Amino acid sequence: MITRTSSLFLRTLREDPADAEVPSHRLLVRAGYVRRVAPGGYSWLPLGLRVLRRIEAVVRDEMNAIGAQEIQFPALLPKEPYEATGRWTEYGDSLFRLKDRKGADYLLGPTHEELFTLTVKGEFSSYRDYPVTLYQIQTKYRDEARPRAGILRGREFVMKDSYSFDLDDEGLERSYQAHRAAYTKLFDRLGLEYVVVKATSGAMGGSASEEFLAVAETGEDTYVRSTESGYAANVEAVVTPAPPAQPIEGRPEAQVHHTPNTPTIETLVNFLNAAGLGREFTAADTLKNVMLKTRQPGAKEWELVCVALPGDREVDMKRLEASLEPAEVALLDEADFAKNPFLVKGYIGPKALQDNGVRYLADPRIVPGTAWVTGADKVDHHVVDLLAGRDFTPDGTIEAAEVREGDASPDGQGTLVAARGIEIGHIFQLGRKYADAFELDALGPDSKPIRITMGSYGVGVSRLVGVLAEQNHDDLGIIWPREVSPFDVHIVIAGKDEAVAAGAEKIAAELDAAGIEVILDDRKATPGVKFADAELVGVPTILVVGRGLANGVVEVKDRRTGEREEIAVDAVVEHLVKLVRS
Amino acid sequence: MITRTSSLFLRTLREDPADAEVPSHRLLVRAGYVRRVAPGGYSWLPLGLRVLRRIEAVVRDEMNAIGAQEIQFPALLPKEPYEATGRWTEYGDSLFRLKDRKGADYLLGPTHEELFTLTVKGEFSSYRDYPVTLYQIQTKYRDEARPRAGILRGREFVMKDSYSFDLDDEGLERSYQAHRAAYTKLFDRLGLEYVVVKATSGAMGGSASEEFLAVAETGEDTYVRSTESGYAANVEAVVTPAPPAQPIEGRPEAQVHHTPNTPTIETLVNFLNAAGLGREFTAADTLKNVMLKTRQPGAKEWELVCVALPGDREVDMKRLEASLEPAEVALLDEADFAKNPFLVKGYIGPKALQDNGVRYLADPRIVPGTAWVTGADKVDHHVVDLLAGRDFTPDGTIEAAEVREGDASPDGQGTLVAARGIEIGHIFQLGRKYADAFELDALGPDSKPIRITMGSYGVGVSRLVGVLAEQNHDDLGIIWPREVSPFDVHIVIAGKDEAVAAGAEKIAAELDAAGIEVILDDRKATPGVKFADAELVGVPTILVVGRGLANGVVEVKDRRTGEREEIAVDAVVEHLVKLVRS
Repeated sequence: MITRTSSLFLRTLREDPADAEVPSHRLLVRAGYVRRVAPGGYSWLPLGLRVLRRIEAVVRDEMNAIGAQEIQFPALLPKEPYEATGRWTEYGDSLFRLKDRKGADYLLGPTHEELFTLTVKGEFSSYRDYPVTLYQIQTKYRDEARPRAGILRGREFVMKDSYSFDLDDEGLERSYQAHRAAYTKLFDRLGLEYVVVKATSGAMGGSASEEFLAVAETGEDTYVRSTESGYAANVEAVVTPAPPAQPIEGRPEAQVHHTPNTPTIETLVNFLNAAGLGREFTAADTLKNVMLKTRQPGAKEWELVCVALPGDREVDMKRLEASLEPAEVALLDEADFAKNPFLVKGYIGPKALQDNGVRYLADPRIVPGTAWVTGADKVDHHVVDLLAGRDFTPDGTIEAAEVREGDASPDGQGTLVAARGIEIGHIFQLGRKYADAFELDALGPDSKPIRITMGSYGVGVSRLVGVLAEQNHDDLGIIWPREVSPFDVHIVIAGKDEAVAAGAEKIAAELDAAGIEVILDDRKATPGVKFADAELVGVPTILVVGRGLANGVVEVKDRRTGEREEIAVDAVVEHLVKLVRS
Repeated sequence: MITRTSSLFLRTLREDPADAEVPSHRLLVRAGYVRRVAPGGYSWLPLGLRVLRRIEAVVRDEMNAIGAQEIQFPALLPKEPYEATGRWTEYGDSLFRLKDRKGADYLLGPTHEELFTLTVKGEFSSYRDYPVTLYQIQTKYRDEARPRAGILRGREFVMKDSYSFDLDDEGLERSYQAHRAAYTKLFDRLGLEYVVVKATSGAMGGSASEEFLAVAETGEDTYVRSTESGYAANVEAVVTPAPPAQPIEGRPEAQVHHTPNTPTIETLVNFLNAAGLGREFTAADTLKNVMLKTRQPGAKEWELVCVALPGDREVDMKRLEASLEPAEVALLDEADFAKNPFLVKGYIGPKALQDNGVRYLADPRIVPGTAWVTGADKVDHHVVDLLAGRDFTPDGTIEAAEVREGDASPDGQGTLVAARGIEIGHIFQLGRKYADAFELDALGPDSKPIRITMGSYGVGVSRLVGVLAEQNHDDLGIIWPREVSPFDVHIVIAGKDEAVAAGAEKIAAELDAAGIEVILDDRKATPGVKFADAELVGVPTILVVGRGLANGVVEVKDRRTGEREEIAVDAVVEHLVKLVRS
């Protein structure tokens, strides 16, 4: 069916919307793809819905290709399964909660792990039933604190979420790799520029985890990548390379020094360098002991924790929190210090901490044999040459220090640089968290139960509309990749001549008959207005039917390159069919 | 792609679910199409989702064919537009309401009139923009008091809702008729047995209105139809045929009689027939005056209303309420009688009512010249031969009396019989209610604003899955119409022979290559189990590949008729392709 601009529910805007922060938001509103209804809530107008549906079709295609089966859950869900896994409360303010007329508690599904698990448990019982992978393409709800950038971060959005159910870890690994390959194919088909980064698993729990990030300056997610290799990771997931351990034998004894008025790293380093100890100290030689308290979910009591890191590094709270998850983390207040007099502010050292049973977690750089200047647990005193593995032994390592551009890449190749992206996919090995919560077992060949292990895989389907516009636009408007463009060819009637209109209609009818999706600008508007709208709307191929028709030619314009080509009117249908199908 | 039963996420059940009241619910659960998640909330398993999607495709097809344009609104909507139209409160308990993290009020959309109106207002301004028709296929939410019958009446369901926007009444009539024709085509394509009934417009407001009801014994909606003509109507919408007026000249005077102890129709009729008045009286000769009070939306005060109807008819509260909508209706209590001493219980007549300014609404049968026995506004007294149009004149007519089987059909042909159905579509001329609420105007050619008039049209898309199963099943299971069946052909491998399996696979592959959707039962189960599942699942054509294969034949079974036919294996693909495409 030919779409005619004269009757299409589309009005393009000359002005940018006031609330648009990023190009995709600005252009999708201006070109009439979406309209804002509420914070983080958008209507899809005809053009937008066409793009969304085409993306959905590609996602569905790649999911079906790996044998995933499509189902669909309600969005309005009862509280009970989410209470069983603790997520009813863990989700906090991000969960939309409501009551029905009888006062029963419901939620709007943010993700459906509970339902997938319960549904498989309801249908399957034998090991012969497994593996199985299910997915849905569904509307999800999250009460984001700061919905932003139009459909890039909405409160109501479309997601493809799939779950794999396997009998063992090898099976899970196969399912995970199948999804990884499917996502790669999918994002390649959409022509996206993206990186796959190692990720932490967040509130979901689980182990192996990677994110697909679309490269975008305006992206909310920061990641780092190697200057030399393909290594890329979320900052939270960067594993600090540990230096080799050093010998302990024959190293100088630790010595306590009187270091008056040196409660900060800077004052300490200056004091030591002025003290004539025969060597130069830097902040990297000092050991900073950052006091925190943590509380496990459901626990009442806080526990003291000390995070030790080289004095030239700051704590990155996001990395720290990701490392300690699911525990809550807070800084100490005055009352905490008062209750624990062994904590000498500005002069805290590992000795008093470990004597008093405080958990002591060290940055991976603090390997055995490294020597440090640190607090001596006494006002105005520090200890020099405190040797890890001899004078103190951490209770464990922790990834809490900031990652800096120029740090060595964890894979040993090159150094790290920072970049920004938008999360478009996330795959991870969820493991048995939900299977445990709902006792999802298969009866094995020996009649013994086998606890199922799960993988979880998501694609932000509606977000992809925004991401594609973000990666494919210029000053004039959007430039859709062919695979998702709302139409294949945008025909502009440039001229008031009846013959021109008739010629354009004839070409449109022939293209339509050949299965090409055509939008025909048949409005009584100036060619200038029509060209501007065609550039803004972003169909990759623009066909201009104008004065040249009298001489038997029409013009084909490539929206991306701007190249124009005159084509004989008799050959143009074949030319365009070939172009669209290529 | 061939779907294999061995890996399909499908487990059929031998037992009926405990909560299933109607056949469609029972069978859709047993055959593994849907699963219950919450009251009125269902998951779509792979087979169910396939049927739902096929129905959606047919609906979309017929909507596009009449030039309707698809868009999509959020389901989570801000309160404000619904407050502007009063529906935020009018919807009462049926509306799911919730608050976001900032305490702002939201609702889950039950219908989207407000959003459609506001969206058109946002895009369009000139009379040249109109007419336009928009639709969406979307998940809707209503907190039903009694969700029932599985997906027939859920709290989360899929609806197609469309709205037409026209400049004048003629345009609205055209849009209405276009939808009426599209719905007829659509329901015919789905092979549904249905009637189109005249309907009242309910809480929506507006004038012309028809419902499409699928004929079903288990339906919730009662309607009446003529024994002779095509007339059909909702009971609420039946217009009582008025008898011809009768002459007033020369009729006997009204006379008050002392009728002791006759507060009921029965005691009155018995008394009169025993009184020797020279004629026989029946309840139909008496005029029953039913006292009520009504209150307009937003009003504080109640107003007295009297509904007069022949004494042999009861008031049908649903018809009465539909007639008085949007006013609230209640019966009088003792305090009301005490406040209005002119109301003499059991002996109320039109005189005192009209003398005291009570609105007096009469059944359409009470035409001028009809004579009645009714209360004389005095205990133990009635008046005989009170003539309508002479002794009293009602303030208007009202459809409040019950409709009975055997009543004359309003179209003058035959009599009425009652039947039951399930609402599958509703079309009505909404008029300017929402355009008025949001001042939706088009600037006319003379630069004067033209208030837009709207039509509203709905199809219960997910409900249709249930309705189709309700109309298409037998004791063994569902029998899908071809247009919506989850698969075209169900192949059963009946035999353990390797050659049989290989033969079935070969046929499946050839059918698949020909674009036929195949489900192949390749499980290691007995033929009996496979046959029972195939009958239950309800694909219209079953192909049995078994022992006969050695002799070059396979069996094609028609699920609906039960007919079996042996077909040469070389000819079967062509045979089936023809069958499916026919």
